[in-house]
Amino acid sequence: MRKPLLIKNGYVFPLDARADLLIRDGVIDTVAPSIDPAQAPAEVIDAAGCIVMPGLIEAHCHLDKTLWSGPWLAERSASTIAERIALKNRNAEHGLPNAGYADALLRRMVALGTTHVRTHTDVDPEVGLRGIEVIQGVADRAADLVTVEQVAFPQSGVAKAPGTRELLREAARMPGVVAIGGVDPAGYDGDPHVQLRAIFEVADEAGCKIDIHLHDPGTLGAWEMELIAQYTKALGMQDRVTISHAFALSTVEPDLQRRLIDLLAEHRISIITALPYDRPLLPTHLLLEAGVPLGMGNDNIDDLWSAFGSGDMLERAWLLAYRSEWRKDALIRPALDVATAGSAAVLQLDRYGVDAGCKADLVIAPGRTPGELLVKRPAQRWVIKNGVVVHRPVA
Amino acid sequence: MRKPLLIKNGYVFPLDARADLLIRDGVIDTVAPSIDPAQAPAEVIDAAGCIVMPGLIEAHCHLDKTLWSGPWLAERSASTIAERIALKNRNAEHGLPNAGYADALLRRMVALGTTHVRTHTDVDPEVGLRGIEVIQGVADRAADLVTVEQVAFPQSGVAKAPGTRELLREAARMPGVVAIGGVDPAGYDGDPHVQLRAIFEVADEAGCKIDIHLHDPGTLGAWEMELIAQYTKALGMQDRVTISHAFALSTVEPDLQRRLIDLLAEHRISIITALPYDRPLLPTHLLLEAGVPLGMGNDNIDDLWSAFGSGDMLERAWLLAYRSEWRKDALIRPALDVATAGSAAVLQLDRYGVDAGCKADLVIAPGRTPGELLVKRPAQRWVIKNGVVVHRPVA
Repeated sequence: MRKPLLIKNGYVFPLDARADLLIRDGVIDTVAPSIDPAQAPAEVIDAAGCIVMPGLIEAHCHLDKTLWSGPWLAERSASTIAERIALKNRNAEHGLPNAGYADALLRRMVALGTTHVRTHTDVDPEVGLRGIEVIQGVADRAADLVTVEQVAFPQSGVAKAPGTRELLREAARMPGVVAIGGVDPAGYDGDPHVQLRAIFEVADEAGCKIDIHLHDPGTLGAWEMELIAQYTKALGMQDRVTISHAFALSTVEPDLQRRLIDLLAEHRISIITALPYDRPLLPTHLLLEAGVPLGMGNDNIDDLWSAFGSGDMLERAWLLAYRSEWRKDALIRPALDVATAGSAAVLQLDRYGVDAGCKADLVIAPGRTPGELLVKRPAQRWVIKNGVVVHRPVA
Repeated sequence: MRKPLLIKNGYVFPLDARADLLIRDGVIDTVAPSIDPAQAPAEVIDAAGCIVMPGLIEAHCHLDKTLWSGPWLAERSASTIAERIALKNRNAEHGLPNAGYADALLRRMVALGTTHVRTHTDVDPEVGLRGIEVIQGVADRAADLVTVEQVAFPQSGVAKAPGTRELLREAARMPGVVAIGGVDPAGYDGDPHVQLRAIFEVADEAGCKIDIHLHDPGTLGAWEMELIAQYTKALGMQDRVTISHAFALSTVEPDLQRRLIDLLAEHRISIITALPYDRPLLPTHLLLEAGVPLGMGNDNIDDLWSAFGSGDMLERAWLLAYRSEWRKDALIRPALDVATAGSAAVLQLDRYGVDAGCKADLVIAPGRTPGELLVKRPAQRWVIKNGVVVHRPVA
């Protein structure tokens, strides 16, 4: 029987109030202005001066590609998406996918407050299902620290890589796989209907979800979003389809942008952004106002594609607020929403939040307001998973 | 007599070689592949696994405006430059300028590896020269930790704020003031010749430098850059004029951009950027290729204008590399150059660097390459000022 946990004197986000939280058996039992420790024998964390918030969510990353804790590569990457995808030929040379690297990165994410991870694992005729197996092993060993869900990701395309469709069908039945991925069905794969038909049918058969990496910008990406909406409707997969990146949304004229957002809302398709580099920001407020679930992730973290990425979701949320020029608390706040409840809505996490009855996945970190927390991103963080403290700040 | 300091086994930037450094009397005495501790009785720092680099330079900030270590403000800022400048009416209400806040921020900068700071201090009929005095007091008390130079900054304009010209003339004679500032001579001040004539004449009389905040974008900012070049030429102030921000450089057509860069090079005018928000990036490589000195700073740090800013120059350099999508070491490296030698060139620091004879202002931090250092920005940093360790990582 786990000892109850009492978190006192914190400023609870998104409640926006000072409150105490009593946690029993992995669940938030009580949220109240003041809970007397004498009434509830429990370990007590004094969260005075801290924000208490639901666990951060890494909604888009690639644990199977990371070199974290391994050698640092001076030379990496290429200029185009196609060239970067071709780097997979170098995966074996670098020992990828690598359980040790994935595990090191995952544990770093935990220390930074991430309690849930969606990771896209390459599935193609070369690596087969080995990436899925390797990452599932890592996920299983860390199951007490963090929940990991996998997307079976046809990084090399479906039309372009015969045999991938069958691998995806197998992957969809494997434990831990919650979604089938996709990648630029037109711009990269060259035959959008072949890819979309395959991944939607596989997902439909398996009863799982879809998460498509759509980098294609402008009118091409817009057209692909329309296709994705058609497939979503045809197979009745509303609430089960996500588009990652969706650069088209920020690179088309306002009228078409408006039309795309309405389309996403109508077919209940969600969006995940990684705030990459200097790419135009997605229209955050238009998406939120339209009720389109919006989440975020780091995407590449120290891999063959890019030296960048830290695994810190507070940094990612800060980047959204900073690049958006949200200079004060009321404006900054939605960035923290996206990294928490927004991503939880995209991933459809069960009982997520800081209310009584929610799962006790929490982060506690110094800050007087959620705005200060995001601006300062303090290194000292307490992380609680299933009601157990899995990381404490170094004293 | 200070004890000599021997830094062993580090990877020295920008030498790009493993080397030991022997420091005596505040100066780098010897740089050699291996220095035997037995030959030189000295305190030894083992820098194995670390980058050893010259001190970071904060080339543009506002210590007099910061609320660092003070109350966190939920409400702040305004939409336009003019509205933000009007916030100065609220400075007194917040106890600004505040020696305690400025000191706290300055000491944080030191802990992050900054050994030299250029700070812009408001000079206007309301605050008079009090900001300059307050900041000079802070600078004097921290003189063993960090070198601070002040720009007397007419934040409220010169044409718009009668009496400012005379205050700037007084400020130019005060200890610690190395430059006269300026702010959007056309777009904000409304009468560019009045402002430019005043600040160039004051600087010329006092033998000090110029650093003008030019936010005006597009062709207006471009025209102002041409005016600044004319004044520079007329008063023979080549090598003594800096333009901060210079948003025009990234918001005009390529032909005009080229012309402006050539103009800067011809009149030996330097540029400082703060990488603000999502504003278009300056043409970094075009500036460097043209030989225009380019430095960087945080600008606002937790003040009435903005909640953002951290004081960490490694973070600022990372932001340049990240937003520029420089995905690998060889591409990332110029970002670290800008935060070190680039800013040193703009500020014309004497004997800056990691060669024998240079002042021993150094930072040591974990990293296998300068690229990894910038991507990871580790919190553990040793900071050396004038040959003395002024900050050590928490064990």
